Amino acid sequence: MKRKVAVLPGDGIGKEVMEGTMKVLSTVADRFGHTFEFHKGRIGGDAIDQDGMPLPDETLRICKESDAALLGAVGGPKWDSLPGHLRPERGLLGIRKELGLFANLRPVTAFDSLLDASPLKPDRIKGVDMLIVRELTGGLYFGTPSERRNGGDEVVDTLHYTRSEIERIVEQGFQAASKRRQKLTSVDKANVLESSRMWREVVEEKAKAYPDVEVEHMLVDAAAMKMVQNPSHFDVIVTENLFGDILSDEASMITGSLGMLPSASLRSDGFGMYEPVHGSAPDIAGKNLANPLAMILSGAMMLKYSFEMHDEAEAIEKAVKEVLDAGYYTSDLANGSTKALGTDAMIKKVIYQ
Amino acid sequence: MKRKVAVLPGDGIGKEVMEGTMKVLSTVADRFGHTFEFHKGRIGGDAIDQDGMPLPDETLRICKESDAALLGAVGGPKWDSLPGHLRPERGLLGIRKELGLFANLRPVTAFDSLLDASPLKPDRIKGVDMLIVRELTGGLYFGTPSERRNGGDEVVDTLHYTRSEIERIVEQGFQAASKRRQKLTSVDKANVLESSRMWREVVEEKAKAYPDVEVEHMLVDAAAMKMVQNPSHFDVIVTENLFGDILSDEASMITGSLGMLPSASLRSDGFGMYEPVHGSAPDIAGKNLANPLAMILSGAMMLKYSFEMHDEAEAIEKAVKEVLDAGYYTSDLANGSTKALGTDAMIKKVIYQ
Ligand SMILES: CC(C)[C@H](C(=O)O)[C@@H](O)C(=O)O
Ligand SMILES: CC(C)[C@H](C(=O)O)[C@@H](O)C(=O)O
Repeated sequence: MKRKVAVLPGDGIGKEVMEGTMKVLSTVADRFGHTFEFHKGRIGGDAIDQDGMPLPDETLRICKESDAALLGAVGGPKWDSLPGHLRPERGLLGIRKELGLFANLRPVTAFDSLLDASPLKPDRIKGVDMLIVRELTGGLYFGTPSERRNGGDEVVDTLHYTRSEIERIVEQGFQAASKRRQKLTSVDKANVLESSRMWREVVEEKAKAYPDVEVEHMLVDAAAMKMVQNPSHFDVIVTENLFGDILSDEASMITGSLGMLPSASLRSDGFGMYEPVHGSAPDIAGKNLANPLAMILSGAMMLKYSFEMHDEAEAIEKAVKEVLDAGYYTSDLANGSTKALGTDAMIKKVIYQ
Repeated sequence: MKRKVAVLPGDGIGKEVMEGTMKVLSTVADRFGHTFEFHKGRIGGDAIDQDGMPLPDETLRICKESDAALLGAVGGPKWDSLPGHLRPERGLLGIRKELGLFANLRPVTAFDSLLDASPLKPDRIKGVDMLIVRELTGGLYFGTPSERRNGGDEVVDTLHYTRSEIERIVEQGFQAASKRRQKLTSVDKANVLESSRMWREVVEEKAKAYPDVEVEHMLVDAAAMKMVQNPSHFDVIVTENLFGDILSDEASMITGSLGMLPSASLRSDGFGMYEPVHGSAPDIAGKNLANPLAMILSGAMMLKYSFEMHDEAEAIEKAVKEVLDAGYYTSDLANGSTKALGTDAMIKKVIYQ
């Protein structure tokens, strides 16, 4: 099969991890007889520097003409003092919104060989395999008004959802749960927020269509605690945009490093954008220190979710697992005790192990 | 000294832990020659059942006529289906707002004798001693509009702050940091929220008056991760209402149990309300299983912050530490390995050890 892939490396370590992921994907393409055509686009600070805006039309066009997109990371101190609408993150939020990528899937898996790298006790995280389904194009991220008032004496942001926005993401949560261990935890703050009370109603309604899925409601503060106390509790979590942002970064510690978490941002027609959960990590950018595994695993998610190439995706996942099992780590995971590989060496291991 | 204390046990385990705390405080009063007059009031579900509303005027009056207030916990499944404005949590939010308790201090301490009770590895949490300063009367909790729209097809909540609300809580953060290890972490989501950008500006401004305090800004998702990865990183955290809610529950796991976290909700004149961070825990209510230490330590905070009774507060803190060091735990902390004490037995240990 031939597939067009938009490639948006972005800023900082985004570029480094993207290079390696393209190599891994090309290797898979060769082995399975596919062709992946990569079309590069600019986003974030990279685009600000070259095009004067964080999300050029050209980039959107490349994505729209592709079958899927890969994104590295955006942002960095260089652009931190720009006004809100010109910041690198606007590019990321803009592309999510413009492409309608409302469903953000963030799987969190405790690799056996990484149990020691986690700050959590091994017996608490062994076997953890959860999926966070985060709403990605609504809530506080996009609600208006979001502005200063009274000459700067007041400020508001708006948490806004339509019922259908809630319905479609909750639906994704149920579908994912029904294909996994049939357990769905809906996270909200229904004891305070009206939007959470509506969220809870929608979950209750949808639950009727999924009698085999066990549903529970959990307050976001309790969920943040449970994530540390007993992460095995969770199968699928479904939650709104900001809660999902916070909980997934927290959950990354189960894997030992944010550098291990891939994600898929999907809409209903199969198109998706795939990106690591980690950011651009300006402190280690350009030093060949970044962990490329989250980006590589995001590539595997692309094969699975957008291209239905399940064997191909599994080949990547298996390679990653084998490299870790063989005791190879990047510095974020090495925990002082093993010799850490650089980004390039890690990529080679994944390709040639 | 003679002091009037409003006592609001509330619901579930709130009643049980409050009983013990009054005994502990009376013991301290006897030993140091003080008199504490306790005046009981109703709040939450307890008040809904008896007065038809979660925060009766009578309760507010009792608080206003007292020098400080103790609160147990509110809420429970019995009242979960009531409409928003009639729920037990409204009583808690109402009293915070009505009494102007904008500064919520939540200290998180890793007790040496509880290192094993935590899901985090002992070397990550040993020596942790942080203070979370949470804004308590603004943000998404109180912003309007908070309502359904278009016949229920849409919903909004509003994150609202005035500049002076941000200024006074940030000021509290700096003051706390300057009395501790001179490090302040301000947590926001400035890459997305306008309110966070204003928050960051205020922190930068205030920083000028505290040249000895090292200030850092951290995004809330990164903070949720750091809290697990390396909690020793933090001295004082200052943040808005909802972020503080989430991060403090998460941080409770450092101590091994939510049952260990006290809190103080203060205004500028010394009046404060003191409550455990844990909730009403309906599942264990009435079973003599609750950990009373968070409530007891909240009592100690009252002595310190509202009554300036530092030796008295330390006597309580020392008693708690000695009981734990002697190997006595309630079931939330026992981790299977030791014989757990009930609520009453734990209270006796604190009083008579
Ligand atoms: C960079 C930022 C805007 C983004 C978000 O908050 O969604 C990031 O934290 C993420 O989780 O993808
Ligand atoms: C009960 C609830 C409204 C409350 C809050 O969210 O503030 C609680 O979680 C807390 O942290 O005190």
